Amino acid sequence: MEETFVPFRGIKNDLQGRLMCYKQDWTSGIKAGFRILAPTTYIFFASAIPVISFGEQLDRNTDGILTAVQTLASTALCGIIHSIIGGHPLLILGVAEPTVLMYTFMFNFAKDRPDLGPKLFLAWTGWVCVWTAILLFLLAILGACSIINRFTRLAGELFGLLIAMLFMQQAIKGVVDEFRIPQRENPNLTQFLPSWRFANGMFALVLSFGLLLTALRSRKARSWRYGSGWLRGFVADYGVPLMVLVWTAVSYIPSGSVPRGIPRRLFSPNPWSPGAYENWTVIKEMLDVPILYIVGAFIPATMIAVLYYFDHSVASQLAQQKEFNLRKPPSFHYDLLLLGFLVILCGLLGIPPSNGVIPQSPMHTKSLATLKHQLLRNRLVATARKSMSKNSSLGQLYGSMQEAYQQMQTPLIYQEASVRGLKELKESTIQLASSLGNIDAPVDETVFDVEKEIDDLLPVEVKEQRVSNLLQALMVGGCVAAMPFLKMIPTSVLWGYFAFMSIESLPGNQFWERILLLFTAPSRRYKVLEEYHATFVESVPFKAIATFTIFQTTYLLVCFGITWIPIAGVLFSLMIMLLVPVRQYLLPKFFKGLHLQDLDAAEYEEYPAIEGVMRDFAERELLDEMITRGRGEFRRTCSSKITSSNATPLNNLKTLQSPRFAEKAYSPRITELRGDHQSPQLGGHSPRTGEAQPSNLGQSPQT
Amino acid sequence: MEETFVPFRGIKNDLQGRLMCYKQDWTSGIKAGFRILAPTTYIFFASAIPVISFGEQLDRNTDGILTAVQTLASTALCGIIHSIIGGHPLLILGVAEPTVLMYTFMFNFAKDRPDLGPKLFLAWTGWVCVWTAILLFLLAILGACSIINRFTRLAGELFGLLIAMLFMQQAIKGVVDEFRIPQRENPNLTQFLPSWRFANGMFALVLSFGLLLTALRSRKARSWRYGSGWLRGFVADYGVPLMVLVWTAVSYIPSGSVPRGIPRRLFSPNPWSPGAYENWTVIKEMLDVPILYIVGAFIPATMIAVLYYFDHSVASQLAQQKEFNLRKPPSFHYDLLLLGFLVILCGLLGIPPSNGVIPQSPMHTKSLATLKHQLLRNRLVATARKSMSKNSSLGQLYGSMQEAYQQMQTPLIYQEASVRGLKELKESTIQLASSLGNIDAPVDETVFDVEKEIDDLLPVEVKEQRVSNLLQALMVGGCVAAMPFLKMIPTSVLWGYFAFMSIESLPGNQFWERILLLFTAPSRRYKVLEEYHATFVESVPFKAIATFTIFQTTYLLVCFGITWIPIAGVLFSLMIMLLVPVRQYLLPKFFKGLHLQDLDAAEYEEYPAIEGVMRDFAERELLDEMITRGRGEFRRTCSSKITSSNATPLNNLKTLQSPRFAEKAYSPRITELRGDHQSPQLGGHSPRTGEAQPSNLGQSPQT
Repeated sequence: MEETFVPFRGIKNDLQGRLMCYKQDWTSGIKAGFRILAPTTYIFFASAIPVISFGEQLDRNTDGILTAVQTLASTALCGIIHSIIGGHPLLILGVAEPTVLMYTFMFNFAKDRPDLGPKLFLAWTGWVCVWTAILLFLLAILGACSIINRFTRLAGELFGLLIAMLFMQQAIKGVVDEFRIPQRENPNLTQFLPSWRFANGMFALVLSFGLLLTALRSRKARSWRYGSGWLRGFVADYGVPLMVLVWTAVSYIPSGSVPRGIPRRLFSPNPWSPGAYENWTVIKEMLDVPILYIVGAFIPATMIAVLYYFDHSVASQLAQQKEFNLRKPPSFHYDLLLLGFLVILCGLLGIPPSNGVIPQSPMHTKSLATLKHQLLRNRLVATARKSMSKNSSLGQLYGSMQEAYQQMQTPLIYQEASVRGLKELKESTIQLASSLGNIDAPVDETVFDVEKEIDDLLPVEVKEQRVSNLLQALMVGGCVAAMPFLKMIPTSVLWGYFAFMSIESLPGNQFWERILLLFTAPSRRYKVLEEYHATFVESVPFKAIATFTIFQTTYLLVCFGITWIPIAGVLFSLMIMLLVPVRQYLLPKFFKGLHLQDLDAAEYEEYPAIEGVMRDFAERELLDEMITRGRGEFRRTCSSKITSSNATPLNNLKTLQSPRFAEKAYSPRITELRGDHQSPQLGGHSPRTGEAQPSNLGQSPQT
Repeated sequence: MEETFVPFRGIKNDLQGRLMCYKQDWTSGIKAGFRILAPTTYIFFASAIPVISFGEQLDRNTDGILTAVQTLASTALCGIIHSIIGGHPLLILGVAEPTVLMYTFMFNFAKDRPDLGPKLFLAWTGWVCVWTAILLFLLAILGACSIINRFTRLAGELFGLLIAMLFMQQAIKGVVDEFRIPQRENPNLTQFLPSWRFANGMFALVLSFGLLLTALRSRKARSWRYGSGWLRGFVADYGVPLMVLVWTAVSYIPSGSVPRGIPRRLFSPNPWSPGAYENWTVIKEMLDVPILYIVGAFIPATMIAVLYYFDHSVASQLAQQKEFNLRKPPSFHYDLLLLGFLVILCGLLGIPPSNGVIPQSPMHTKSLATLKHQLLRNRLVATARKSMSKNSSLGQLYGSMQEAYQQMQTPLIYQEASVRGLKELKESTIQLASSLGNIDAPVDETVFDVEKEIDDLLPVEVKEQRVSNLLQALMVGGCVAAMPFLKMIPTSVLWGYFAFMSIESLPGNQFWERILLLFTAPSRRYKVLEEYHATFVESVPFKAIATFTIFQTTYLLVCFGITWIPIAGVLFSLMIMLLVPVRQYLLPKFFKGLHLQDLDAAEYEEYPAIEGVMRDFAERELLDEMITRGRGEFRRTCSSKITSSNATPLNNLKTLQSPRFAEKAYSPRITELRGDHQSPQLGGHSPRTGEAQPSNLGQSPQT
């Protein structure tokens, strides 16, 4: 993305790009059929459950003026609008924790003013929203999102981990509170006797850990050995919502002498209860707000605008990381403009506004990558089988697979990725053919194990469409009506779900992987190399990795500490924005350019061409694993690495598994590169095989 | 073992064999140094915790006449005597569940007889023990143990799984009971109010699942990535007792308003409380028992004798399975004779007798195999490093390693295993040398990765000695004195420990693996072949495996059902004895000899020589894995298989990992065998590597 600050140019570019693929956004989603329901349900739960729980929090903090009904309504309304006319169809909108904090702060300010008070609170927040929207409009029009690529991996992943920490904190706090008497309740009820409180707390531990452990297990169902493929797929796709149901059912098992309030369940008014819809007419009262407060609303508005600008853009960015191989253009400016309109709308309706949320947005993209993989795979397997049944040769087989692959690719703007995928498919088929002897001989399943081969060939692709986003937003809207059923969910199941989301967001976060690497025993680091690993593991000395990670961890802990400050807590986003100058001016003084490049690539820094090629490989592999790892969809577990010339001690540990895949897919390029490059290491060339039998790839390059 | 029924011959043979290695039993244990404490502590907990809990059960069932003090005393006393003068030093003795059931039955019979009553109950059981011992003497002298090899894997593993089910049943029952009011307690106490009972039950769930999950995890610590090697080893060795401590500490966290009885803790009188030692003088009262009851004691005595004969022998057998490569001779007859003496001793002291226990005995052998592996490994690694530092060639390196290996082997009766271990070490070293080019060139760690190579070379061996057994028995004895501390352990931690023992006994049980295979999706069966697997997986058609397993499972469920019958429950051992004729006469009518041979080898059946060689390989590999799998001590995960001529459809799935190890260690033999054998499959020859580059082992044998 070029950094242009010409007014409206960013918005215009965005709109042009997205309009070109708008129709395809819908058709491709509809073509996916019922399978689209898997990512939809997955994201619906990830989106609705925190929103409900934030609603409960808001209910307590605003003396019941805002409840889960309002947070759900905002999430559904903004989600529907964004999924239809928004720029990034992968971005998930919702009422987030910072919004809740801001509203709590504003309520505490308003309730004690005699000329404002709880009565005019919503009208005043209406004005705050108006100001916020104006600021967002300005930012969008002036092209503020152009500098979004200055938020490097450093900032994005730090923010991701911070959110994971906040979710985990909420989970722990929630469980601990199950042992206490809730503030708004009557402490003389039976269920708040010390014995029942203790019982409730212990029950909460059982329910939340039960949900957490079973949900984590069920996501890995695809790699289970037991049960039919259909069942495994079903559990992997729908296991998490299923577990919410199961543990809710379990919470009803104790009966008889156990009082009704145990375990504690979701608290929210029904949308049809009196008082639950007072806010919808807030627009009528907005002119009753004293002029001083209308002007003063500008102060919280700037804070919210900064927060939303950052939060919305980073959520977009994380949902569209390079490694997902997205083919459709980004749309940061237009989305920020739209967010402005959504904020005004919410303000006038008296509901808290929604913005792009983490970790739900990247979770959405990941789940769509899984879907796309399954669709492509099924199609290619069917084609290959059909072709083989006609006794065709490997050459013909490749031809028909190529054709099928192309049919799955609708013509789009960004074609490189598609071409690359095809090229790789061809290369590896030819490689395979030559190893078998004759490209024209008929093939059968004994030489060409269809399912495995295709799994190995497929690149990471994402089903980019609008249907899943629209459906999940509609389902969130349905929650408002389903409130009586939602209220059956025990709060402890929610806490377990928070912990689940926190843990689910960790894999693929390189910051997290680096923290783990710090704790990995030196003698076991070879295991990291055996499995998926990013380039930096081999190309950057361990000491530099450690220093960089310790700096980042300290920074993270400072940000986390700031969120604990009662009112200034929302300022943590400024701290993360501060990372832009820190990365640009401070870090290069402490780290070598090449290392920084591998640890945290920034587009505004140049780097050698050869490195670029390598990064390209590495990242595709990396994200491949990142998306699917831990769920067992793919069987390949190694990435073939070519290290840069500044080799690290870790290079000595070169044991790799699955030598064939690596050789097949990469050896042509490796051979190309060997000429230009000092002492390359053939990562794909397993030394174990090499030593045991004379290899046709020459002696071990280590000597 | 020959089937000889000449009186005393079996005992004489046993004594001769064991006396030859008696001195070495002690010296080798003492030489192991402090490392012997790891298996000792592990087995001490596995032995003491069930005994304490059986004692509590007995306490309830005999109105406090027998308590945990007596069961611990019996276990310690019998354990000490057996470890010093017993035949099998690997066999662990303890008061077992069947003994508790028999004593409960006898107490229920005695307490209502006016001329016996609770007062003479122990005196009467003294007579039962006398009769039991006489029967055991007869069985031992007449050589009844000669037919122990008619208890094939079928019976042994079925019994093992039955015990695992009983342990798991006890765990579940224990946790459920935590929600109820214990019979002997005053139901009006605070802690038995419905609220506190519910709280106690939930707390019990937390504690027992906490112990179970953390204990299972800690056993796998050796394969963790984090922490130093020392820490990982410590956690793997002592993690389970550590977790008992940790969860006991956790149980003390809730305080303040929580009444003292929550969570419930072990109940047992202190050994110095009045009444706890009344039983020790029971011998004085034995003549007060009416003559009719002295004679009548013969009836329960026969049941106990049959039970002990079976239980003791099967526990010995499972602790000495062929696959452990034990070098010292067995001693079934002599051990049965000694058991007779122990039973008399216990009877006269008024404590319930101990016998060989499952799963502790095989657990003991497994933990000693791990120990032996570590000791051998450390020694060889040190030798290799020293040799390399002197710039020696691979030939010299092998020489010094051979020398060190021999020093670790004390001359014993059964030398074949030792010779085999050495031969393999030599073969693989030479194989490695030839692949590197020159056997006389100096080697360094880049070509010879010491730790990995040695891990791959080492055969399974068990540290056969008496020290660990004696120490654990002494520690059990120490428990009697430590009763005030033991009483701090919550009962719920015990239930978690029961579940842990049940699960820990499953891996390596082929019956269990076959049950899992039945539930494995057909498309995932290749995964079984990728990892460790027994011969039958490849050589027996799936249908035969399924039929055999379903038959065995049905039989198991019938046995389990019998244990639920109030008094006749102990007869389940007769059902298992019935398996001997079933296996010998019935099963051969339904299964092919070759298949039966692979599923359940019986020594009295002959089988072709070629199969024998293969079984030898397979089993060594298999047990290797069986002992260490799941704890991560070894890194090799494939077994190289040569399938018999009746190949199964599963043979098509031939993907194997770690091709080098397999080729290196087995290819000479594989080549030898290829001549005599139709279409052998080179399991070790990874098809993945084979296709990608021309292999020097010829074309894929599948075509």
